[in-house]
Amino acid sequence: MSKPICVTVWNEGIHEKTDKKVAEVYPQGIHGAIAAHLGKQQGIEVVATATLEQPEHGLTEAVLEKTDVLTWWAHMAHDQVEDKIVDRVHKRVLEGMGLILLHSGHFSKIFQKLMGTGCGLKWREAAEMERLWVVRPGHPIADGLPEYFELAHTEMYGELFDIPQPDELVFISWFEGGEVFRSGCCWHRGKGKVFYFRPGHETFPIYYDENVLKVLANAVRWAAPIPGSPFSLGIPDITEPLNPIRGGEG
Amino acid sequence: MSKPICVTVWNEGIHEKTDKKVAEVYPQGIHGAIAAHLGKQQGIEVVATATLEQPEHGLTEAVLEKTDVLTWWAHMAHDQVEDKIVDRVHKRVLEGMGLILLHSGHFSKIFQKLMGTGCGLKWREAAEMERLWVVRPGHPIADGLPEYFELAHTEMYGELFDIPQPDELVFISWFEGGEVFRSGCCWHRGKGKVFYFRPGHETFPIYYDENVLKVLANAVRWAAPIPGSPFSLGIPDITEPLNPIRGGEG
Amino acid sequence: MSKPICVTVWNEGIHEKTDKKVAEVYPQGIHGAIAAHLGKQQGIEVVATATLEQPEHGLTEAVLEKTDVLTWWAHMAHDQVEDKIVDRVHKRVLEGMGLILLHSGHFSKIFQKLMGTGCGLKWREAAEMERLWVVRPGHPIADGLPEYFELAHTEMYGELFDIPQPDELVFISWFEGGEVFRSGCCWHRGKGKVFYFRPGHETFPIYYDENVLKVLANAVRWAAPIPGSPFSLGIPDITEPLNPIRGGEG
Amino acid sequence: MSKPICVTVWNEGIHEKTDKKVAEVYPQGIHGAIAAHLGKQQGIEVVATATLEQPEHGLTEAVLEKTDVLTWWAHMAHDQVEDKIVDRVHKRVLEGMGLILLHSGHFSKIFQKLMGTGCGLKWREAAEMERLWVVRPGHPIADGLPEYFELAHTEMYGELFDIPQPDELVFISWFEGGEVFRSGCCWHRGKGKVFYFRPGHETFPIYYDENVLKVLANAVRWAAPIPGSPFSLGIPDITEPLNPIRGGEG
Repeated sequence: MSKPICVTVWNEGIHEKTDKKVAEVYPQGIHGAIAAHLGKQQGIEVVATATLEQPEHGLTEAVLEKTDVLTWWAHMAHDQVEDKIVDRVHKRVLEGMGLILLHSGHFSKIFQKLMGTGCGLKWREAAEMERLWVVRPGHPIADGLPEYFELAHTEMYGELFDIPQPDELVFISWFEGGEVFRSGCCWHRGKGKVFYFRPGHETFPIYYDENVLKVLANAVRWAAPIPGSPFSLGIPDITEPLNPIRGGEG
Repeated sequence: MSKPICVTVWNEGIHEKTDKKVAEVYPQGIHGAIAAHLGKQQGIEVVATATLEQPEHGLTEAVLEKTDVLTWWAHMAHDQVEDKIVDRVHKRVLEGMGLILLHSGHFSKIFQKLMGTGCGLKWREAAEMERLWVVRPGHPIADGLPEYFELAHTEMYGELFDIPQPDELVFISWFEGGEVFRSGCCWHRGKGKVFYFRPGHETFPIYYDENVLKVLANAVRWAAPIPGSPFSLGIPDITEPLNPIRGGEG
Repeated sequence: MSKPICVTVWNEGIHEKTDKKVAEVYPQGIHGAIAAHLGKQQGIEVVATATLEQPEHGLTEAVLEKTDVLTWWAHMAHDQVEDKIVDRVHKRVLEGMGLILLHSGHFSKIFQKLMGTGCGLKWREAAEMERLWVVRPGHPIADGLPEYFELAHTEMYGELFDIPQPDELVFISWFEGGEVFRSGCCWHRGKGKVFYFRPGHETFPIYYDENVLKVLANAVRWAAPIPGSPFSLGIPDITEPLNPIRGGEG
Repeated sequence: MSKPICVTVWNEGIHEKTDKKVAEVYPQGIHGAIAAHLGKQQGIEVVATATLEQPEHGLTEAVLEKTDVLTWWAHMAHDQVEDKIVDRVHKRVLEGMGLILLHSGHFSKIFQKLMGTGCGLKWREAAEMERLWVVRPGHPIADGLPEYFELAHTEMYGELFDIPQPDELVFISWFEGGEVFRSGCCWHRGKGKVFYFRPGHETFPIYYDENVLKVLANAVRWAAPIPGSPFSLGIPDITEPLNPIRGGEG
């Protein structure tokens, strides 16, 4: 396992430029904070950061080709992401690339495309406390976590979260204001793995929290591609039967 | 339960017009054969049939509004289905409408949109025998079936079928030529239910087979909407907490 | 669908006899309250109530034979339930009988036997508020419910709930004291359906709450047997192949 | 990841002693053949082999304590395995130990206890061909496999396989004689992982097949424990609420 997991950290990158408060919390951008953390983890290498404003949003064929796991933060400008880039990321996920959607990334085109649902949810900004409970203790994404952890001040996301039932449900959040949320959800699409992780915000300093950072690193490791078995895209015509056919009219 | 389940039967409807052999097998079109069968079932009413060539492909707001379950057969012209109609059907599924994809409908835009995957598979036309095994005997879609049933001459569809793992796997097919296939698959999206059923063809008279017809009727009953609990689309801002929040900076 | 769903309501029945407070809340026993409610529902018939102290705990072959759905409340004396009765109930579930486990029934032998796990959880008696969120709005068990409902004073059950991930997760509870819980969980075993529903208590008057009662009736309807397809128990030797075998040494 | 995965290979071990033909195929016992293969894999260490006839069937507390993954082959004498040893293995699985059930191990007490179902299936001994199709190409257990592989002469196992729907379905088998089978199935119980793998036999030399052996090693790696998050067995009373409770009567 000597080859590191190559991560690309994507960020919409608008809040940081338009809101001084955000820039104070994340002077290198949200992507900068995430990349700095992941880059320090053993066996993980950040090969690129990328933002909306770059050509092809920084997600060129070349960048995706070398990306094992892509993390995605976005909020204000989901509809500015070009469909052809969404399709490119989608294709790479089916081929095996891991994708980690963060916080408001739930409403991104790529997440909706992978889920097949609307991905709506309730929300409230009231700086309330969130407590994330581990409901799948042997899951790699929960590795090293206590049975629950708390974030003192968060934006609330509440059910109903309009997603297909997760293949693996890792966290359920309790919010001070009275809601619950499926906060850590895993799905498999093609050969790729998809993880949605709720915590995050542009001004609450969520991506400096020790447990949140632990989840990010765990998720990257979980989402890394597995060579597996050949995966045929498309609809190949298999004219030669493997076993004899007694026949019939056509 | 006096109100019947209102079904719309959709068919691409091209083979029947361009291939005399198809027209002989299905003189009223594939949709005609399916509608004739479903219309005779207790508690089911066929409220419309519709084809690609009709304005809005026959799937107007008004038609979908009164449709509880939509069945979908298509093969040659998936890409001619307008995106806005696909989006309309998709929205109705999330709201609760059942959708039954038949045979080559696996490669339709609406199925790909609901699955989030490519939906590819292997295929071969060799008039070979298919045996469908029930692997979930208490499922409503298997009601009244023997433990397996056979179709003497079929087009083969083989794994790998590029779908998310089904929420409920009802049938697995054995093919004479050596392949297997997940032939009856259920998923839930929003409030809606989606069933993919493999058997079908434009010239093999599959939709006259007694067991296939039983599955179609069972699937319609299974896919019928359940009022359930309110389902909020979108991302409502819930400003009033349900429980008091001790606060914090924001 | 003229034949009613035949329900047997089982109750340990000890609290009511040993604690005056319980007897005041449930003068006919917890089973009496549940049976009275279900008996009034259209299409449901309570064919028996049964308690631990009866011969064979009231769950004779004859009673189970006529039971479509069995509801189970127990708390203090799980280990007094005879293994042969547990095995009998288990066999009936595999054959198609529905089973609804209520509240402290999570630690019953029959639930543990069906789950394959320990079924432990955290608990606290502090008369705290519980809010149950519907996370699967199109599910039949959520039919007619608001998007959440509240119970003013409950015993808390908290994660980690040691169960296999539910096949269908219908409710997640929020508790005033800070925990969450997977409160409405569905599984399929053999041809039978199993539903665990958290709310309930011997002194909090939970089984008089309108929404709880709605869930109970919905759950009975959901859990009712479906004839389906034949279900072979055991390990039958199929000596005659369905298709020719080219052979080989043995 | 320098610490190896510690494997114990369990075998009923009766066929080898009572049937000369079996002893010829597996001169060191089936466990010997499996242990020899696994022991050669990088990162895997076989810490014990054990058989039915040993005291405590060779599965003492000490042996299980050091076992990360246990493989289990059995056929004739499932009922001779003591319940207390079954309970001990079960407890270890919930705590995180991986368990790999091989072939006729489907009818073992430990598998039935973990599944909650009868685990029956159809079978036939006719030396027929089996073709295993990968239906989850990105799964670690399919790593390095072709899209299908064949075993020339096998005992047939056919559906209906009476198991809970697998959490992850990796292989589906095609049999020459006409059946299909869910041949590679994953479940999660507590913190532990369970894999059932169909191929195997006492006289067909299945455990010398290159692809079968690849699956065994992959499965051991997949099933290895993950520390994860704390896992509380039992039903702890949490008297101190995490958040204030406004109270009520008790």
